[in-house]
Amino acid sequence: MDFRSDNVAGVAPEIMAALAKANEGTSASYGADDITARVERRLTEIFEHPLRAFPVVTGTSANSLALAVMTPPFGAIYCHEAAHIMVDECGAPEMYTGGAKLVPMAGKGAKITAADLDRALADAGIGEVHHVQPAAISLTQATELGTCYRAAEIEAIGEIAARYRLGLHMDGARFANALVHLGAKPKDITWKAGVRALSLGATKNGALAAEIVILFDPVLAETFAYRRKRAGHLISKMRFVSAQLDAYFIDDLWLRLARHANAMAKDLAAGLLSVPGMHLLHAVEANEIFAKLPAGILGGLRRAGFSFYDWPGAEPGTIRLVTSFATDPRHVAAFISTAKNLASAAA
Amino acid sequence: MDFRSDNVAGVAPEIMAALAKANEGTSASYGADDITARVERRLTEIFEHPLRAFPVVTGTSANSLALAVMTPPFGAIYCHEAAHIMVDECGAPEMYTGGAKLVPMAGKGAKITAADLDRALADAGIGEVHHVQPAAISLTQATELGTCYRAAEIEAIGEIAARYRLGLHMDGARFANALVHLGAKPKDITWKAGVRALSLGATKNGALAAEIVILFDPVLAETFAYRRKRAGHLISKMRFVSAQLDAYFIDDLWLRLARHANAMAKDLAAGLLSVPGMHLLHAVEANEIFAKLPAGILGGLRRAGFSFYDWPGAEPGTIRLVTSFATDPRHVAAFISTAKNLASAAA
Amino acid sequence: MDFRSDNVAGVAPEIMAALAKANEGTSASYGADDITARVERRLTEIFEHPLRAFPVVTGTSANSLALAVMTPPFGAIYCHEAAHIMVDECGAPEMYTGGAKLVPMAGKGAKITAADLDRALADAGIGEVHHVQPAAISLTQATELGTCYRAAEIEAIGEIAARYRLGLHMDGARFANALVHLGAKPKDITWKAGVRALSLGATKNGALAAEIVILFDPVLAETFAYRRKRAGHLISKMRFVSAQLDAYFIDDLWLRLARHANAMAKDLAAGLLSVPGMHLLHAVEANEIFAKLPAGILGGLRRAGFSFYDWPGAEPGTIRLVTSFATDPRHVAAFISTAKNLASAAA
Amino acid sequence: MDFRSDNVAGVAPEIMAALAKANEGTSASYGADDITARVERRLTEIFEHPLRAFPVVTGTSANSLALAVMTPPFGAIYCHEAAHIMVDECGAPEMYTGGAKLVPMAGKGAKITAADLDRALADAGIGEVHHVQPAAISLTQATELGTCYRAAEIEAIGEIAARYRLGLHMDGARFANALVHLGAKPKDITWKAGVRALSLGATKNGALAAEIVILFDPVLAETFAYRRKRAGHLISKMRFVSAQLDAYFIDDLWLRLARHANAMAKDLAAGLLSVPGMHLLHAVEANEIFAKLPAGILGGLRRAGFSFYDWPGAEPGTIRLVTSFATDPRHVAAFISTAKNLASAAA
Repeated sequence: MDFRSDNVAGVAPEIMAALAKANEGTSASYGADDITARVERRLTEIFEHPLRAFPVVTGTSANSLALAVMTPPFGAIYCHEAAHIMVDECGAPEMYTGGAKLVPMAGKGAKITAADLDRALADAGIGEVHHVQPAAISLTQATELGTCYRAAEIEAIGEIAARYRLGLHMDGARFANALVHLGAKPKDITWKAGVRALSLGATKNGALAAEIVILFDPVLAETFAYRRKRAGHLISKMRFVSAQLDAYFIDDLWLRLARHANAMAKDLAAGLLSVPGMHLLHAVEANEIFAKLPAGILGGLRRAGFSFYDWPGAEPGTIRLVTSFATDPRHVAAFISTAKNLASAAA
Repeated sequence: MDFRSDNVAGVAPEIMAALAKANEGTSASYGADDITARVERRLTEIFEHPLRAFPVVTGTSANSLALAVMTPPFGAIYCHEAAHIMVDECGAPEMYTGGAKLVPMAGKGAKITAADLDRALADAGIGEVHHVQPAAISLTQATELGTCYRAAEIEAIGEIAARYRLGLHMDGARFANALVHLGAKPKDITWKAGVRALSLGATKNGALAAEIVILFDPVLAETFAYRRKRAGHLISKMRFVSAQLDAYFIDDLWLRLARHANAMAKDLAAGLLSVPGMHLLHAVEANEIFAKLPAGILGGLRRAGFSFYDWPGAEPGTIRLVTSFATDPRHVAAFISTAKNLASAAA
Repeated sequence: MDFRSDNVAGVAPEIMAALAKANEGTSASYGADDITARVERRLTEIFEHPLRAFPVVTGTSANSLALAVMTPPFGAIYCHEAAHIMVDECGAPEMYTGGAKLVPMAGKGAKITAADLDRALADAGIGEVHHVQPAAISLTQATELGTCYRAAEIEAIGEIAARYRLGLHMDGARFANALVHLGAKPKDITWKAGVRALSLGATKNGALAAEIVILFDPVLAETFAYRRKRAGHLISKMRFVSAQLDAYFIDDLWLRLARHANAMAKDLAAGLLSVPGMHLLHAVEANEIFAKLPAGILGGLRRAGFSFYDWPGAEPGTIRLVTSFATDPRHVAAFISTAKNLASAAA
Repeated sequence: MDFRSDNVAGVAPEIMAALAKANEGTSASYGADDITARVERRLTEIFEHPLRAFPVVTGTSANSLALAVMTPPFGAIYCHEAAHIMVDECGAPEMYTGGAKLVPMAGKGAKITAADLDRALADAGIGEVHHVQPAAISLTQATELGTCYRAAEIEAIGEIAARYRLGLHMDGARFANALVHLGAKPKDITWKAGVRALSLGATKNGALAAEIVILFDPVLAETFAYRRKRAGHLISKMRFVSAQLDAYFIDDLWLRLARHANAMAKDLAAGLLSVPGMHLLHAVEANEIFAKLPAGILGGLRRAGFSFYDWPGAEPGTIRLVTSFATDPRHVAAFISTAKNLASAAA
């Protein structure tokens, strides 16, 4: 009964089957295979826009490579102060860009606003040689706090990116969860809103290790392949990464998996609302719940076999619960009932 | 009938089965799982030495990370001029080390000699601030030309590394093939001979995407984990990388797979010896054959459905043939008989 | 009547004379000359501690090199959010460290406190591979707002640096101004308080282009010379940089020059206090004044031939006035009387 | 009697006077002063071409910055194996480019040829993701061995650079010496021959510390200023660097200084031809002489008070003699006569 993260889950059966199927005969290596080409074609259809798509195996490399093609070494990348690229990648964007600076911004629900960005950029010293130069904005969709940017919010930021000629990147490690929650089309929250590079994740949503960087701007693609190789992220037996992505996008598997994860989170959140002393910290829009519960209940839940993380930097008693494509509804129900029982016993 | 590379092959059935088996339940992510720990323990036994072992998914990242923990930005890495790190990694070692310099050395059969190294180091300007400072030596085992360093050759180089206080790294993308050819114990051609860091490959020898960096010196391990994460090479669902390695080392699977690849190469080379006009360019000690054949025969082989690479930078008619764990003996036989027939027809 | 910065001033006559004197005969290049050695010896006496001293020509390179010998690429450097290294060096510390992250901290008067640092470090995720690892703390003395750290404040921070095993760096571009204000001995606010590396500036205080990095810890010096050369900061005719520093430290020239600059600032600030509508924003402890004045007075001052900067990011009407070793007391008096007259006229 | 290098000399009186003259009043810092602007204008006239010019204080930074605006991190820079950027800058180009690779080429007299370059580029794997991508060519004028490229030789290389769309950089640390030897106009051996970036040195030829990067292509200038600042090479009191350059180019001072240095070298070489057992290793075209002399004579010369360097990597008895703008003709005469006497005594 593991709510620690969506990456504690395994691999969706459809994706496992695709791996087995890809394991037939020999195949050109380093991405020159048919499956890799097919994935790019399918994404062109899904996003309804010409694009280049580059599979990798981690979200960190996807983000860093996407940012590196937008950001010179003397550049600045604007992101939320809780962004994965800011907090959880041990400086990978700095490594890949040759030492660019990430500029952390505050913002409710781990979202940055167009208005705040506009103010920050007005004070950034653009054109002054003493200061790093704004080069990119990075949004996380869904955010690190399980919230989602609306299309209009992204558009407003996209308009600023265009005005200042900045790259607009989206960290979509949980892009499918956001898409499903918003009921949006992929294009609505990406290129139509000004996004030029998307790190689209599959690993947290049922793949073994597969992410894909989608570049809506062909100029950005010019150096991408060299940078990926140079970073050690060009997988030799690429067909096995692409096969995961191929299965992921066939018959809307990615959306089905995300719908389950989101539904489990909503059910869990709804059930918890009836637990006395429980506070939800953020809107539950994707597959993450941030809740504050009495210490006694948390201890009891853990003793009952539930695992989850205390949230660092937050008030004591704040936990994160993450559901996934594989979350068993019975575990959700058990979590709720156990919490209620613990609360009753404590009362 | 694909002799282009050992990475055109798929995944060994035992490893595929291990992946399926690992896909049960949830598991701690980022390498905190049991399988990852088990692989490190097993390697300690196999190498008969304390060590730290870090799984990654590409040879390029394995090499670059191993070199980065040995080499400051102002350092120099001595390697053969044909080394993968020199020629085929698009500057990855430079990226990971923060701009160290690779010093290419000539040498027969893609091997460097202790004597040449000694001479080069004597002229390197050690301690002079104008020059990059020797920091590491990198050997490839088996080499890019399918030859193998003998234990004594490595020891002689290890002695120089010790004298100059340099790190000694081994690129073992085809380590198993070398081990099998030499009939050596793992320790004989690694730590006992002075090797401090080994990039041990599994991908070319039957894994989907799995390599492991083995550090025989605990000091080198101190910063490794941060560097791996920062490079985007810490796989979240690590158990699936480790499961491949786990299967690879159980019951000597790695050696069995390599033995087959090597045997296929030897059979192929032996058969080709009877083809008029054929010249072998290097000793066939692992799973690669470098041969020169008349253009007519090469064209005929390709028309007959055999695929293989012309070798860049060599004389016209020079090809590389690579066998793998999955090479079908019938393909080897067919290659030989086709070549012979083409030669007869041409005579 | 130029109060824009202390770097709009020229070169002190004593230093100019030293340059002329150094221009006799030939001399070993790249720092192997006698003057360079003498400067290091003199600094050992001035600081009453063994040390290594490396001349460079810019404060940015001094800071970046000092930080680079303390900070791995995956490291974090804690500094005030207004620090020169954070704001005004276009990412130089990131370049020199290979992409480390600067962590900006708030704090009154551009000073960070031990208590805030302690809290930040407790939450920094030390030992967790996902996060950059605290490596160094950088203080500016005097600060960017013209205030000075007391010895006890530095000691408290030094104690934290020791506890967390972090390097403690001091950006001393205006070190002499701080020293004079505090009436401290050099040792009191450096190594005795835990500082391990000091960027000691001379340029703003009368040199042509000369700064010196002082390392109180011999371990830090091991790679410094290579890093300096590699950054293009080893001056070939070094004697001319060292000659400036030599003159700077002889007969307390550096302190005399700083005393004048500080006195001019104090006089200017004192005089301004009598100008109606004027507000001082920070304590005037070195050679910088931050003041808010009515727009009409500022315009009038500029028309009268005074130059100074509006302070970016502050409220309208906020200006910075900087005095230097070369500030003419008559310019100070004229500034005050002009401001008073303008205020009277406006009343 | 110092023939070690041209950087053991001091500063030409005209340049020293210019420094004193620049030390009047205050001046805008960081290059916004009038002198800096004037130098750029004058260079536009001297080179008869629009250009951007950026003063720095070392040849290493000039070269590295010029290369960095031409070369992506995955790029390759082709240069002679004896080039200063290859051998003597401790990896600075690698640091500034973010880890590009320098490709060393052989060639007589430290010159590379168009034919060799063409062959190397044909084999470089352009467009293949596994290999670093050719980005720039760097020539040294005069070379490290005191020889000079003819305009036609540069043009032939420039034509290749154009064909492969590579940047063509010239390391002109001794550009004036070459110009004077060739009797060429500045434009003949720079932009007209395809050179897009020139590191023009003044330090070795009479300045205190002044070099200037000249970019003939405005696109290259777009990011230069940020890169210079970020590298710590934007001098705050820039007027004092520019004043050196200003004096350097007024009334052909640079050519007069170089003419003297070259004449001294020619006289010295001519005189040495009459010393039995002496061999000149390279044509004496600038201000460097590479000679082989019997050990006894070398020892005698040193005992007589002459200083010079043994040339590393060459046969025993090989020395380098460097003359400069400041070389005293009497020292040249004394060197020759002493050598002759020693040779006679030994006979």
